[in-house]
Amino acid sequence: MDMNQDAIADWLADAARAARAASSLLAHSSADARNAGLHAAATQLRAQARDLIVANALDLLAFDAGSGTPAFRDRLALDPQRVEAMAQGLDDIAALPDPLARTLADWTRPNGLRIRRIAAPIGVIGMIYESRPNVGADAAGLCLKSGNAVILRGGSDSFHTARAIHQAVSTGLREAGLPEAAVQIPPATDRAYVAAMLAAAGQIDLIIPRGGKSLVTRVQAEARVPVLAHAEGLCHTYVHQAADPDMARRIVANAKMRRTGVCGATETLLIDAAIAPTLLPLIAADLTALGCSFRAGPRARAIVPSMAPAVSGTFDTEWLDSVLSVAVVDGIDHALHHIAHHGSDHTDAIITDDAAIADKFLRSVSSAVALWNASTQFCDGAEFGFGAEIGIATGRLHARGPVGLEQLTTYRYVITGTGQIRP
Amino acid sequence: MDMNQDAIADWLADAARAARAASSLLAHSSADARNAGLHAAATQLRAQARDLIVANALDLLAFDAGSGTPAFRDRLALDPQRVEAMAQGLDDIAALPDPLARTLADWTRPNGLRIRRIAAPIGVIGMIYESRPNVGADAAGLCLKSGNAVILRGGSDSFHTARAIHQAVSTGLREAGLPEAAVQIPPATDRAYVAAMLAAAGQIDLIIPRGGKSLVTRVQAEARVPVLAHAEGLCHTYVHQAADPDMARRIVANAKMRRTGVCGATETLLIDAAIAPTLLPLIAADLTALGCSFRAGPRARAIVPSMAPAVSGTFDTEWLDSVLSVAVVDGIDHALHHIAHHGSDHTDAIITDDAAIADKFLRSVSSAVALWNASTQFCDGAEFGFGAEIGIATGRLHARGPVGLEQLTTYRYVITGTGQIRP
Repeated sequence: MDMNQDAIADWLADAARAARAASSLLAHSSADARNAGLHAAATQLRAQARDLIVANALDLLAFDAGSGTPAFRDRLALDPQRVEAMAQGLDDIAALPDPLARTLADWTRPNGLRIRRIAAPIGVIGMIYESRPNVGADAAGLCLKSGNAVILRGGSDSFHTARAIHQAVSTGLREAGLPEAAVQIPPATDRAYVAAMLAAAGQIDLIIPRGGKSLVTRVQAEARVPVLAHAEGLCHTYVHQAADPDMARRIVANAKMRRTGVCGATETLLIDAAIAPTLLPLIAADLTALGCSFRAGPRARAIVPSMAPAVSGTFDTEWLDSVLSVAVVDGIDHALHHIAHHGSDHTDAIITDDAAIADKFLRSVSSAVALWNASTQFCDGAEFGFGAEIGIATGRLHARGPVGLEQLTTYRYVITGTGQIRP
Repeated sequence: MDMNQDAIADWLADAARAARAASSLLAHSSADARNAGLHAAATQLRAQARDLIVANALDLLAFDAGSGTPAFRDRLALDPQRVEAMAQGLDDIAALPDPLARTLADWTRPNGLRIRRIAAPIGVIGMIYESRPNVGADAAGLCLKSGNAVILRGGSDSFHTARAIHQAVSTGLREAGLPEAAVQIPPATDRAYVAAMLAAAGQIDLIIPRGGKSLVTRVQAEARVPVLAHAEGLCHTYVHQAADPDMARRIVANAKMRRTGVCGATETLLIDAAIAPTLLPLIAADLTALGCSFRAGPRARAIVPSMAPAVSGTFDTEWLDSVLSVAVVDGIDHALHHIAHHGSDHTDAIITDDAAIADKFLRSVSSAVALWNASTQFCDGAEFGFGAEIGIATGRLHARGPVGLEQLTTYRYVITGTGQIRP
């Protein structure tokens, strides 16, 4: 076991060193070269679609011998359409603006020194994700475009699939004359690879975990490398008493039920006492018709008694399912207090026609994304116009909200002088 | 001991909770209110100057009973001029632009959603520093201005001084109607406070260590909280063969000798073989006249035999003293290779009249700051026009180079709609 761990640490050290060299090359490559690499990788995914699906069948066979859920199996499964979608995803990333071609600031000091803050790749990124194979392809594409190298560690359940995808991407990089070490995967499923990645301070610059809460919290707790992630999306929609009732009904139904498994789905409805008696029954009926059930506080149940009662922990639960926590509140301060207490700094929305109240809400919630009169499900890189995202971040540093290409870059200063010395 | 550690963890939990509440208030306070707090703190520092100097005398007495160096004593000592400089520092911070009044991006999506990325405080910052008392006052001022709360842990040697400064700042905050919990210090010098701060993930958002390499590397190794810092500044000045000889002499002398103890001081001179025979003797004479000694590689010693020989580790040494490592290199690729191998990603400079070579250098070094024809000692927040800095960062995430007010902020998204739901 110890020897195995040493071997794994050695593999990681070699991989990270090669990745850093690759990132260094990518940092100075032209956007055209990186885009050609993306297109070549997409072409290889299409050309090797049959191999990908055969590899995926191996993973599905192993999965079917176990006791996983149908939902998990669906996330794991590849078919020709999904392979094409992955390939198209890489082509789409190639079409996005170059995130490295940005001068973020440019000023000249009184002494004549010109200081420019310019975008630069972060370096070596470690991506730790679960079963969905496309996450690996997307992450490879976003990292390549932004000049970063990436080490992809997918779930053990999708190992053969991930390896086949990596194979195709590698071939594409090689054909485009880019360093294959820019995208790497561990050679085996041993969990010690994850531990080694999390411990690799100085070798890996950033870990991005993408998956369920248990994966992300474990990564956050163990990592010695900076982590960009969200562990949960306990999102609130607050219906203020001055809300337009029809808009509120439409938005709450969408925010909860459009897709229940996404991190931007609303988990808790807060509704003002002044409007709840007339509006809550309508919202409850809308959602019930869509298949949603409820866990409601006593004041909400006094209005809609058919709702199941909230219990201890209800308002701290990210359902990711057709379940909505419901609480009646006494105005905005009460709502803000509830969100500060139970929220996860992800996404929170207010529905109101009162601009002053909306302004107070938007200023006061600490979440990465605060919305007024719109669905929380808009917290998404594509909906922001980022084209693609590698995840959502709820921490305080570097990037918050959807993490797209720009958020995968850092900056450095370039200063040009004419012989200046410091007095 | 265990009980003491529990008590310390309890203190920190309470302090961090109060700090977060204070930061939340500061985040929504006006710039005028925060500036009034800064001026009031400055006024209190001036009013309590005598108390500060008495407290400092206690620290100096304890110091004089030990075996510290004169340089350390000088850093520790306060006098009326230094108190006034601290107060003036807070007044100066008040005069800087409000870092929270910034909309970093503002766009409208085809569906009509308006998305704004706006500056926001990071939250609760833990500042861990060594003996220089003004670091605490500066950090308190920069954090207050940027809407952050701060827990200040200074060196044990300056505990009485730090407490007196904290007392004055607290009084100023109270008089200005701002939350005193925005600036806190541990009630005792126990080292377990540092350990508790480093472990306080979720309570403290960011640790900024400021001090020698051993302090910073220990913090980086132990912290469970994100860290913004530099452990060392192993800065290079590379004199390319097309350098203007007079400019090169002037810049190298300044970069090494203006102040030798700052992190932006040049530690290693790289000089092209083509120009070294004529230029290196002149540079060596200039620096010798200024009191500098050398540790030189064999090719440099072949030109200036009086220089002491480099030994193993020479080129990995941050001297912070009147010592310069010297190596002759064979052009830019050799220089870049040396810097990639031995540098600390802090600040590196090239001296050349060849714009294409300069461009290659500026693109290729991975340092936070790359300079062309200027002294490495310009790596400083004031020289960047930031007004003040809390430190220099060499990591890859969030902020690199001088960390000023803007770098003490993060962002969040505010989205305004008219009832949009996601299809």
